[in-house]
Amino acid sequence: MTQFNDYDGFFRAELDALKEEGNYRWFKDLERRRGAFPRAINRQEGEEREITVWCSNDYLGMGQHPDVLAAMHAALDKTGAGAGGTRNISGTTHAHVELEAELADLHGKEAALLFTSGYVSNWAALGTLASRLPGCVVLSDAGNHASMIEGIRHSRAQKLIWKHNDLEDLEAKLAALPADCPKIVAFESVYSMDGDIAPIEAICDIADRYGAMTYLDEVHAVGLYGPRGGGIAEREGLMDRLMVIEGTLGKAFGVMGGYITGSAALVDFARSFASGFIFTTALPPAVAAGACAAVRHLKHSQTERAAHQDRVAEVRARLDALGIPYLENDSHIIPVMVGDPVKCRFISDQLMANHGIYIQPINYPTVPKGTERLRITPSPVHSAGDVDRLVEALGDLWSQCQLARQPIAAQ
Amino acid sequence: MTQFNDYDGFFRAELDALKEEGNYRWFKDLERRRGAFPRAINRQEGEEREITVWCSNDYLGMGQHPDVLAAMHAALDKTGAGAGGTRNISGTTHAHVELEAELADLHGKEAALLFTSGYVSNWAALGTLASRLPGCVVLSDAGNHASMIEGIRHSRAQKLIWKHNDLEDLEAKLAALPADCPKIVAFESVYSMDGDIAPIEAICDIADRYGAMTYLDEVHAVGLYGPRGGGIAEREGLMDRLMVIEGTLGKAFGVMGGYITGSAALVDFARSFASGFIFTTALPPAVAAGACAAVRHLKHSQTERAAHQDRVAEVRARLDALGIPYLENDSHIIPVMVGDPVKCRFISDQLMANHGIYIQPINYPTVPKGTERLRITPSPVHSAGDVDRLVEALGDLWSQCQLARQPIAAQ
Ligand SMILES: Cc1ncc(COP(=O)(O)O)c(C=O)c1O
Ligand SMILES: Cc1ncc(COP(=O)(O)O)c(C=O)c1O
Repeated sequence: MTQFNDYDGFFRAELDALKEEGNYRWFKDLERRRGAFPRAINRQEGEEREITVWCSNDYLGMGQHPDVLAAMHAALDKTGAGAGGTRNISGTTHAHVELEAELADLHGKEAALLFTSGYVSNWAALGTLASRLPGCVVLSDAGNHASMIEGIRHSRAQKLIWKHNDLEDLEAKLAALPADCPKIVAFESVYSMDGDIAPIEAICDIADRYGAMTYLDEVHAVGLYGPRGGGIAEREGLMDRLMVIEGTLGKAFGVMGGYITGSAALVDFARSFASGFIFTTALPPAVAAGACAAVRHLKHSQTERAAHQDRVAEVRARLDALGIPYLENDSHIIPVMVGDPVKCRFISDQLMANHGIYIQPINYPTVPKGTERLRITPSPVHSAGDVDRLVEALGDLWSQCQLARQPIAAQ
Repeated sequence: MTQFNDYDGFFRAELDALKEEGNYRWFKDLERRRGAFPRAINRQEGEEREITVWCSNDYLGMGQHPDVLAAMHAALDKTGAGAGGTRNISGTTHAHVELEAELADLHGKEAALLFTSGYVSNWAALGTLASRLPGCVVLSDAGNHASMIEGIRHSRAQKLIWKHNDLEDLEAKLAALPADCPKIVAFESVYSMDGDIAPIEAICDIADRYGAMTYLDEVHAVGLYGPRGGGIAEREGLMDRLMVIEGTLGKAFGVMGGYITGSAALVDFARSFASGFIFTTALPPAVAAGACAAVRHLKHSQTERAAHQDRVAEVRARLDALGIPYLENDSHIIPVMVGDPVKCRFISDQLMANHGIYIQPINYPTVPKGTERLRITPSPVHSAGDVDRLVEALGDLWSQCQLARQPIAAQ
């Protein structure tokens, strides 16, 4: 028997396969310019060039908001760089305590728990709940994010995938389960890549009927929807129907980190048993302070949310005028469908090379093969001129590449 | 069949059980004071009090180093708060690129990959390698950190646990495996809670004999050992013997984040396939810039490392003089063994209440039941007066509680 030892050979072969499929990823090397965002510097082959970013998840530009930056500078000056420990061992700082209170309040819950990211919050919370509730079954929307999928996988609980946003399928699956086992219905409010929104109330009604916990990922909605930025559930007056509302501090709130909110008992349970919470260095106090400033600002100010929705509507109207196809939805995400990984990258490269416009091609595994797209995220920091340049460039490119001007249906 | 729906009741019962065992965790609410660290403010029941932290993993005080803070302030001013996207979708900034180059250089490897934490780096890298190498078997040291354990669990690869630091057991387990399957030997250099150090060279020799990959967690060694802070493997001239060296930016480097280093192919493989790397917002540029400044500083300066070792030796000598028992090891970690969760918490509470000294009691699940301890981490920022006060307080408490003055063996 020959010894296996060509590890690098194996890795290279797998990478070559990715490249052949057109799914290999090249990262852009960017430097955002505070105060001038969405402008950034792109470094490529030693050259620096100013570009406009149209695919950021800093949806409202809070990453350059003066309150956020002032809070971060002040925290650095006052307390230094890192937390210096796990939450249990010297790493809980007043900034964490304050932010958790702010987040619990945002979602109308008794308590909140910070994690190092939204990914870790989903992975750790679902992983812990599903593995520790005896005999738990997780009902997971087919469109759920990787972080939820991995958390459920990690738990080794039974998992049933229900058709995306399909109430009948969810109900059928719940009805087929024994009444006496704990159940978690896990789903998102705004789905990141298609931008469609879940029927939260109807899902909660069904879950209640079968005694299931409801776990909602509002990562692409917090800060953006609801009178205080509590997300879609806040906008629809449904926050009290959800047992867990999960969110991120890295998108509309502009910084980094993730969290869950829920009952005091549930949050204390996750705090006490979630490995991904316990065994890791806490977020830097400056990160917590910056996120806290963003959350506080967006609880009161409607300006950013209103401007955001206006800018999204404007881009959609301008794309319509040119017949450039995108997936329709009720959110702020504009997926311009291409349906081919190589073409998708080509268009993106042309936008960058000829127009200084950066829209990352979204390929597998982020979206299913065959649904490759340009995911445009307009924001209040994009000017009218930016919109003009974007739409003109896309129009030119559509002609140049002889791309269809009818909407392409997704999936 | 009655419907299960008392989720909170279940959570509360589990929390009550923890409390009865003495393993429930209360977090301190701290505020470090930049420039005065290890001094911090402790908030408790509305009162604020200045205390001295003796259990931080900001081992060298780099969290308040002027270069680190200047780099973070500058990055905030230049680029803003967050990265605004995943590494692939607008979130790779020049600060990430520079830091990855610095880390690859630190460990003498072709490439490095940043993760949001050391926990995520272990979890995602081991999870990805072990699940994608066909038929892979992971040989995991019995003392490995939760993040490695969870990564291996996640991979669903076959796992064999070898006795902690036991070369014979490792070799026996490797010898019993078929030659033609990929194998990963996963271990740490400095074990965090006992402070003992792995026989890296001998482990690499054995791994080589059986064609196994070597994966080394240097989380508690990077910055602290080796002429450039590359860790124990650097100190012992063994960096090229390891296929993966993993580390954190949240302990000796004083900020936050984690990484792996290895061959270009291995790192590109993790970059391309690790869910925990791909589907999460990148570290804030300011965090990357701060960590980069810390890594750079500690590549050149020996001052912090030397002062660190001196302070550790001094605390040990002073504990010896009073007969206060601690676990001996060759690292910087001083575990004062108590062996009972309730007593361990009591001593910690007394230190805080009567002496303003903060040493978190380390209980299950961080250490095995029966090995509860006070884990003391002296640092260059502790003054001679701090050491006096610590040792006197421990001496008083040892008498007051009539605790044994002989070393208690661990585990
Ligand atoms: C739906 C969803 N949930 C969770 C996450 C993870 O959040 P974070 O970026 O804070 O890790 C993301 C994106 O990154 C997401 O799209
Ligand atoms: C051995 C070991 N590996 C990994 C980690 C995780 O590193 P981080 O705190 O950066 O998540 C820790 C501690 O937190 C650790 O002790």
